[in-house]
Amino acid sequence: MRPLITLTTDFGTTDHYVGTMKGVIARIAPEAQVTDITHGIAPFDVMSGALAIAATAPYWPEGTVHVIVIDPGVGSERKQIASRVDGQIFVCPDNGLLEFIWRRARNIETRELSDDSLFLKPVSQTFHGRDIFTPVAAHLANGTPFEQLGSVVADPVRIDIPEPERVDDNTVRGHILKADAFGNLITDLGEEWHPKGDFQLSVAHSLIERLLPNYTEAEPGELFAIIGSSGWLEISAKEESAAAITAAEPGDEIVLRMLG
Amino acid sequence: MRPLITLTTDFGTTDHYVGTMKGVIARIAPEAQVTDITHGIAPFDVMSGALAIAATAPYWPEGTVHVIVIDPGVGSERKQIASRVDGQIFVCPDNGLLEFIWRRARNIETRELSDDSLFLKPVSQTFHGRDIFTPVAAHLANGTPFEQLGSVVADPVRIDIPEPERVDDNTVRGHILKADAFGNLITDLGEEWHPKGDFQLSVAHSLIERLLPNYTEAEPGELFAIIGSSGWLEISAKEESAAAITAAEPGDEIVLRMLG
Amino acid sequence: MRPLITLTTDFGTTDHYVGTMKGVIARIAPEAQVTDITHGIAPFDVMSGALAIAATAPYWPEGTVHVIVIDPGVGSERKQIASRVDGQIFVCPDNGLLEFIWRRARNIETRELSDDSLFLKPVSQTFHGRDIFTPVAAHLANGTPFEQLGSVVADPVRIDIPEPERVDDNTVRGHILKADAFGNLITDLGEEWHPKGDFQLSVAHSLIERLLPNYTEAEPGELFAIIGSSGWLEISAKEESAAAITAAEPGDEIVLRMLG
Repeated sequence: MRPLITLTTDFGTTDHYVGTMKGVIARIAPEAQVTDITHGIAPFDVMSGALAIAATAPYWPEGTVHVIVIDPGVGSERKQIASRVDGQIFVCPDNGLLEFIWRRARNIETRELSDDSLFLKPVSQTFHGRDIFTPVAAHLANGTPFEQLGSVVADPVRIDIPEPERVDDNTVRGHILKADAFGNLITDLGEEWHPKGDFQLSVAHSLIERLLPNYTEAEPGELFAIIGSSGWLEISAKEESAAAITAAEPGDEIVLRMLG
Repeated sequence: MRPLITLTTDFGTTDHYVGTMKGVIARIAPEAQVTDITHGIAPFDVMSGALAIAATAPYWPEGTVHVIVIDPGVGSERKQIASRVDGQIFVCPDNGLLEFIWRRARNIETRELSDDSLFLKPVSQTFHGRDIFTPVAAHLANGTPFEQLGSVVADPVRIDIPEPERVDDNTVRGHILKADAFGNLITDLGEEWHPKGDFQLSVAHSLIERLLPNYTEAEPGELFAIIGSSGWLEISAKEESAAAITAAEPGDEIVLRMLG
Repeated sequence: MRPLITLTTDFGTTDHYVGTMKGVIARIAPEAQVTDITHGIAPFDVMSGALAIAATAPYWPEGTVHVIVIDPGVGSERKQIASRVDGQIFVCPDNGLLEFIWRRARNIETRELSDDSLFLKPVSQTFHGRDIFTPVAAHLANGTPFEQLGSVVADPVRIDIPEPERVDDNTVRGHILKADAFGNLITDLGEEWHPKGDFQLSVAHSLIERLLPNYTEAEPGELFAIIGSSGWLEISAKEESAAAITAAEPGDEIVLRMLG
């Protein structure tokens, strides 16, 4: 089987940057199969990158090498790391991009990328995606031992994302994590918080009282809750953007109250 | 030869969704080669998806499996189908996405996707692209027999798109099908309607009287007709958007009158 | 090793065009691996296409076949060419797209594409990416000899891009080549012009006096110079768009004065 490498960045696709990283991989690991997760993460939005890689990783085979480059600190003293987590390897700057990967992981080993024999020389100041992260990923895909990358990092950078908080027996305070391209609002309310009976969910100035099994049952313009594809409660509207209707933004608090 | 799978969706490329579908394929059919047709279909625009897959399919080899997911009814009672048409297989929701494929086809066999041993479990309510359509396509790429998918669907959903209509001996009434990213307006006037001599073509408030062999011969700002790459008459302007100049939209009627 | 083909166009990714070119390649050269450099070149922007392919080509292996289609003259008398440059082959319309490739090349041989047995028939008037450029690239990837394409072109079209000009011992006048998706302004000041000591760089109405090793050391809102990943001096701002701050545009003159 061909080794698998995925790419997640905030580079966009109007410049040559993503294509150039694939050329670097083609030179080092011609047998590798490279797949884009997305290059449309908002510039410097580490939180969105962390959510994207955590949402996709469970669907990839063991052995996949994931490269994630949302890197406002490129060229500074920030570390560059690789983390082996439950059979996959993640290569990225040390700025919190693996927060959600690590939260649910069992086996984690994180190493600094310090063996510069694996880098593309000369290393530029501004494009470590090309010069460090993809060449290291390509060497890993070729079978370079993980232990060769560098020494163990005991305390990688984490993101301080608040978890949902129980307010009282019937009420939980959660958050909007992100809006997807359809305008669905993805919350941090996982399975334990999914409403079983009547409820009221406050999002910005809107009140939501229905949990629907699909989009078609909604009334035009109605905001409703739905179980999203990653297991989080989402707020949606039928063929409209719930993000636009509510004007809610990532980080906003939401309040879910169970009734009766 | 590696089995071929193509993907056409309205998912955009800013979220992880498309990448995740490719992970699902990599797990089930690691030898398959996956190619994006487009993920930029306007959200829920089944008509545009139907046009895109019909435009690209003739250029793909026999045996290609095409996945098309523009699916406003995901999670509802709408069927999910696969259709074997002249040696290729199309996997999609049953909402008309194959309208143009079927119109020109000779051999069609359509089956419901009901063998859930081919699905990714648990099946979510909102992301059948990941849980049903791509896993089924990957199994087909692996050689799962088409007949195993489910029972024959005799009356799949069709789109009621009006055909061009002859008004009198010299006049035909057609339609704008879509505008492409350059602003070229693609009409439904196929080869039989291409002007051979002088003509007048009314599009919104504009009148077009020249058929040109290429873009460079046009005057700045001039609207002209040209034979498009799929054989339909198109309305274009030189390095400008005919869609913006005319303000014409998909579905608008156009009238072509042959002179003399 | 699988033969490599890259694609660089101004087609965008909302239409089926790019996917269809990949179908054409899959039919002719099923073993080829096709990679997108970018399809987000601004429509008809030959200069940006020329910069993109020159930035990425050095990172691709010998033998790679690059297809570049920014082609406002499609269907007119403009030639279509392939150019073999230092072990890679570039296939494109003859309109200057290889300007920067040729400037730094040692061995160049350019041929007209006139052997229409290599084309997809019938050749359309508007989509030579599908009918000429990708089929020729696929045949080259299959091993068709370069010499078979057509006769040598001695004087391909060049772009008349002004080079940086020395004004006096301490001053050089250069240009903005492009803004990338982050808003970094890429200039044409290569290594010989990189400031070694104090300097003043005028860009539109802004004055820049600092050369920084990375983005994080900048003050909020500060414009600064940095050595870009292709070796050109760039003008940047920390997590902001220098293009938006300066309102500078491609082609604008800049003036760099060394102090003391």
